Amino acid sequence: MAAARHSTLDFMLGAKADGETILKGLQSIFQEQGMTESVYTWQDHGYLATYTNKNGSFANLRIYPHGLVLLDLQSYDSDIQSKEETDSLLNKIEEKMKELSQDSAGRVKRLPPIVRGGAIDRYWPTADGRLVEYDIDEVVYDEDSPYQNIKILHSKQFGNILILSGDVNLAESDLAYTRAIMGSGKEDYTGKDVLILGGGDGGILCEIVKLKPKMVTMVEISFAKYMRRTCGDVLDNLKGDCYQVIIAGLPSNARVVDSTWEFLRLILDLSMKVLKQDGKYFTQGNCVNLTEALSLYEEQLGRLYCPVEFSKEIVCVPSYLELWVFYTVWKKAKP
Amino acid sequence: MAAARHSTLDFMLGAKADGETILKGLQSIFQEQGMTESVYTWQDHGYLATYTNKNGSFANLRIYPHGLVLLDLQSYDSDIQSKEETDSLLNKIEEKMKELSQDSAGRVKRLPPIVRGGAIDRYWPTADGRLVEYDIDEVVYDEDSPYQNIKILHSKQFGNILILSGDVNLAESDLAYTRAIMGSGKEDYTGKDVLILGGGDGGILCEIVKLKPKMVTMVEISFAKYMRRTCGDVLDNLKGDCYQVIIAGLPSNARVVDSTWEFLRLILDLSMKVLKQDGKYFTQGNCVNLTEALSLYEEQLGRLYCPVEFSKEIVCVPSYLELWVFYTVWKKAKP
Repeated sequence: MAAARHSTLDFMLGAKADGETILKGLQSIFQEQGMTESVYTWQDHGYLATYTNKNGSFANLRIYPHGLVLLDLQSYDSDIQSKEETDSLLNKIEEKMKELSQDSAGRVKRLPPIVRGGAIDRYWPTADGRLVEYDIDEVVYDEDSPYQNIKILHSKQFGNILILSGDVNLAESDLAYTRAIMGSGKEDYTGKDVLILGGGDGGILCEIVKLKPKMVTMVEISFAKYMRRTCGDVLDNLKGDCYQVIIAGLPSNARVVDSTWEFLRLILDLSMKVLKQDGKYFTQGNCVNLTEALSLYEEQLGRLYCPVEFSKEIVCVPSYLELWVFYTVWKKAKP
Repeated sequence: MAAARHSTLDFMLGAKADGETILKGLQSIFQEQGMTESVYTWQDHGYLATYTNKNGSFANLRIYPHGLVLLDLQSYDSDIQSKEETDSLLNKIEEKMKELSQDSAGRVKRLPPIVRGGAIDRYWPTADGRLVEYDIDEVVYDEDSPYQNIKILHSKQFGNILILSGDVNLAESDLAYTRAIMGSGKEDYTGKDVLILGGGDGGILCEIVKLKPKMVTMVEISFAKYMRRTCGDVLDNLKGDCYQVIIAGLPSNARVVDSTWEFLRLILDLSMKVLKQDGKYFTQGNCVNLTEALSLYEEQLGRLYCPVEFSKEIVCVPSYLELWVFYTVWKKAKP
């Protein structure tokens, strides 16, 4: 599907905006493009001018009286020519606006254009809700499982990225994630029993089997063999000398819980029940900016059936575009 | 200055868009808000409907005939109420659009809103030109020096970020950068002479003085004492036991060069001239995605006055939101 390209150009003038002068000053630029103007005027809120082009593209010019002037330009993203025309139009407007506001030094901001409705979606917000554009250039896999939507998208720098129901889960660049959730190299796995809950990208399993554990059991609802740099060949067969992968959905008689936090505590309690007295439970927390969610998580840790202690570490996970908190939890020594 | 909040809501329908039906279907939602509609129709390019509200906010609905329907909503970002009203309006439109396109399963995308023209600018594109929003919450410093604009912005997760003429240079979270440009811990600095060209954030100087060098000379055009977690106290005095900082602009008789690449080669040649035969030159390259720029840089390395060899390393620099290439260059051993 052909996408639309949405460009913006913002002027923060150093003084109040003289709407009439700005409209008159820019008029010839839009006329040269053969664009048709229609202006809406508010009593107290300035101007909105809309310019439509025969080829289907259009522009909006919003002049806020206190000195904010915002231009939006939307057109088909079909050919290079239209990109160049857009840039040239934006350049002309920027130049003219500087001329018109000579006496009031201000700021100009031109953001990278947003591509909307393309076959390849490059916008996957961070956990703390910021707008970020990824360098995605290919949709490798996109299917709905009974539990979630599974996407594997290729990023030029991060490799394949696993996206579950819109959340960036892991990319092939993210060994830092796998290392962090394994205890950052401080844990000796030799001869140990390991249970992996989730981990469908195969990263943890792939790293742990190198460390001579006694037995690793991984329980997942589905898994991704497209993350080759992450999972190596451990997911090709679901059983190896020292590991097994169990694919299981929620049983139909699964207990119904009231909230995400209650579900989380249920899982934590069940995990603690199978954890040895001297065992360790590693998990990811959340983005460092989500301080409230992190506090709530730590609150849950204080409400388990047995007393636990925990430590945390902040790690930069490349494809997350943010810093994340990882937890190590263990049972409090019996007095 | 009060900012504007620009929200988007995109529908990729599974079939061609029936413009008349969509306009009619959504009409009552905009009417409820007291918005005035005006519609522009193209022969072959679909519809553009503009809805203006008495309070100065407005919406655009662009219906592309092949099945792309894009909604834009712009309003003052002045109070929480307006945020909630925006969200509620977007929810209603999303719901109605799903109803209208029941027979043609498609995709819906709602991006985090863009805040335009605010006192705090959160959008600083990556080196490869992607749109990203930082978690900036404070402007710590913003001045024009004779050479560049210098900004220090505070990020909740990355700490203070140094932005020179619009380019993210370094944040307090970026020890990985400083480590990489120092040779990733593989270099022994004991008793060595070190020349730092630039490095105004103080990170390299701060780390190197811990490693017992003979003498470090840093040459910069300005420096930033606001990066405390990066520079420690080494910039408080410009001279210490084993280091000195020289603040110097370009001399007025500086040689004029034709291009950035020629300037870069000039600096590289001058650097090689003061480099000992067994010395090492460390530098940052560029974002891994800018393969052409990296090739051009390596081409320059092949055109220096003396033959050199080089190695490179890819490092995730937290605040860059991308992977970067770092170079180590040394003089080829004489035969």
